[in-house]
Amino acid sequence: MNLKQLVGIEAASYITDGMIVGLGTGSTAYYFIEELGRRVRDEHLQITGVPTSFASKQQAIDCQIPVATIDEVPYVDVVVDGADEVSAEFHGIKGGGAALLFEKIVASNSKQVIWIVDESKLVEHLGNFPLPIEVIPYGEEQLFSYFESQEYHPTFRLDQDGEKLVTDCKHHIIDLHLEEIRAPHALADELDHLVGVVEHGLFLDMAHTIIVGAADGVKTIHVPSKTDTL
Amino acid sequence: MNLKQLVGIEAASYITDGMIVGLGTGSTAYYFIEELGRRVRDEHLQITGVPTSFASKQQAIDCQIPVATIDEVPYVDVVVDGADEVSAEFHGIKGGGAALLFEKIVASNSKQVIWIVDESKLVEHLGNFPLPIEVIPYGEEQLFSYFESQEYHPTFRLDQDGEKLVTDCKHHIIDLHLEEIRAPHALADELDHLVGVVEHGLFLDMAHTIIVGAADGVKTIHVPSKTDTL
Repeated sequence: MNLKQLVGIEAASYITDGMIVGLGTGSTAYYFIEELGRRVRDEHLQITGVPTSFASKQQAIDCQIPVATIDEVPYVDVVVDGADEVSAEFHGIKGGGAALLFEKIVASNSKQVIWIVDESKLVEHLGNFPLPIEVIPYGEEQLFSYFESQEYHPTFRLDQDGEKLVTDCKHHIIDLHLEEIRAPHALADELDHLVGVVEHGLFLDMAHTIIVGAADGVKTIHVPSKTDTL
Repeated sequence: MNLKQLVGIEAASYITDGMIVGLGTGSTAYYFIEELGRRVRDEHLQITGVPTSFASKQQAIDCQIPVATIDEVPYVDVVVDGADEVSAEFHGIKGGGAALLFEKIVASNSKQVIWIVDESKLVEHLGNFPLPIEVIPYGEEQLFSYFESQEYHPTFRLDQDGEKLVTDCKHHIIDLHLEEIRAPHALADELDHLVGVVEHGLFLDMAHTIIVGAADGVKTIHVPSKTDTL
C-alpha cells in the first residue's frame, strides 16, 4: 500500500453516518473517495458527498456515493482533500490539479478541514511548489506582465496539447514560481485585491487536521489554533 | 439632445490621434462610442478601441472603430464609461449593465478613467443603487445566505426570462440592497476576500475625471487626489 492510499483510508475512518462530506480532488483524495465508496457499499455508511471538481463528482458516482452540490446542502461537516505543500505553520498551497476554486469554495463552507498528504509535502516555508492563480482570460496578459514586474516568475499552465489549460469554470491558471513565501498573508491579501484574479492557491488558517503518511506509518496533526473549533 | 448624449459627445472631445481608448458599456457609454465612431469616419481619427463587453465590442465594430482586446495592447490611455452612482468622494458603483468585471479589468489597466453621468447619479454616499457582486455559480447559495446573515439584503439578478442572469464570463450577479454604504473601503476589502466572489461593483479611487450632464449644461470635475497623475 502506498502512502497516498494509507492516508486516504485513515481519513475515511473519520467519517460517520449522516455526515455531509466534501470530496477533494487529486491523486491522494482519489484513495479517500475509493475507501469511502467501499464503506458505503460494504458497511452501508449513510453520507452525502460534495465534490470539488467534475472529476471527483464522477468518481463518487462511480463509487455509489450519493452526491450533492455545495448549494444543495446547508453546510459541509468535513472536507478531506490533498495539498501540494503544507508549511510548519499549517498553511497550504493547493491547485496542482487545477481544482483550487471549487476546493476553496467547499473548504470555506466546511466545519472541519482535513488534509491528507505524504511526508514529502511538509515544508518549512511554502513556495517551492508553484503557486496557482486562477484568472479571468480577459486581461490575463496584463496580469502576467504585472507578476513579471513583481518578479513572481509567472508561467501559464498548459494542457497536454500545449494550449492554456481551461479550468472547470472556464478560467486559466498562472503559476507563480516564488521559491519561498515568507509572508503568506500579505501575498494572499495582494492577490485577493487584484482585478482579474478569481482565486489563488494559498489556503491559510484553513486546515484543522493534517494526516501525514510516512514510511514508518501515519501521523495525525491537530492544528493547535484550530482545536477549539473542533 | 438628452443629457447622456451631451456627456458622451463631451467625453469624445478628449480623445486624440493615436490613443488606445477603453470603451464603456451601457446607455451613456453608447453615445460616447457613437460620437467616437463619427469622428473616426468623418475626421479620420486614428484610435484603437478596447471594449468592456461583447455589446460595446459589437457597437464599435458597427461604428468602424478598430478594436483590440485588453491583452493585445500595452495599456489603455483613457477609458470612458458610465457609472450608476458617484459619491461626494468620487467613488462609484458600477455594474447595472452586468459588465462590471470587464469594465474593472479595463479601468485597472487605464492611465486615465473618465466617467460620464447625468446629474441624477451624483449622491452623498453610495448604496441607494444596488451593489452588484459577480459570483461563481458553484457556492452562490452559500454566499447568498452569508449576505443575508450580514443584512446586506441580497437578490439574484434575473434576465428577462426570469432565469439567473449569466454574465459575459458565465458568472451570476447578486445585488446587495444596502441603502447607504458608510465605509466603502472596508466593504470592498470584505468582498475582495470572500471565496466565490469574482468581482464587485465598488470602483474606489479610480476616476480621474467625471463629466456630469445637467439641465444647465455640462460640468467637468477633475478629481483632486488624482490630478497629479493626469
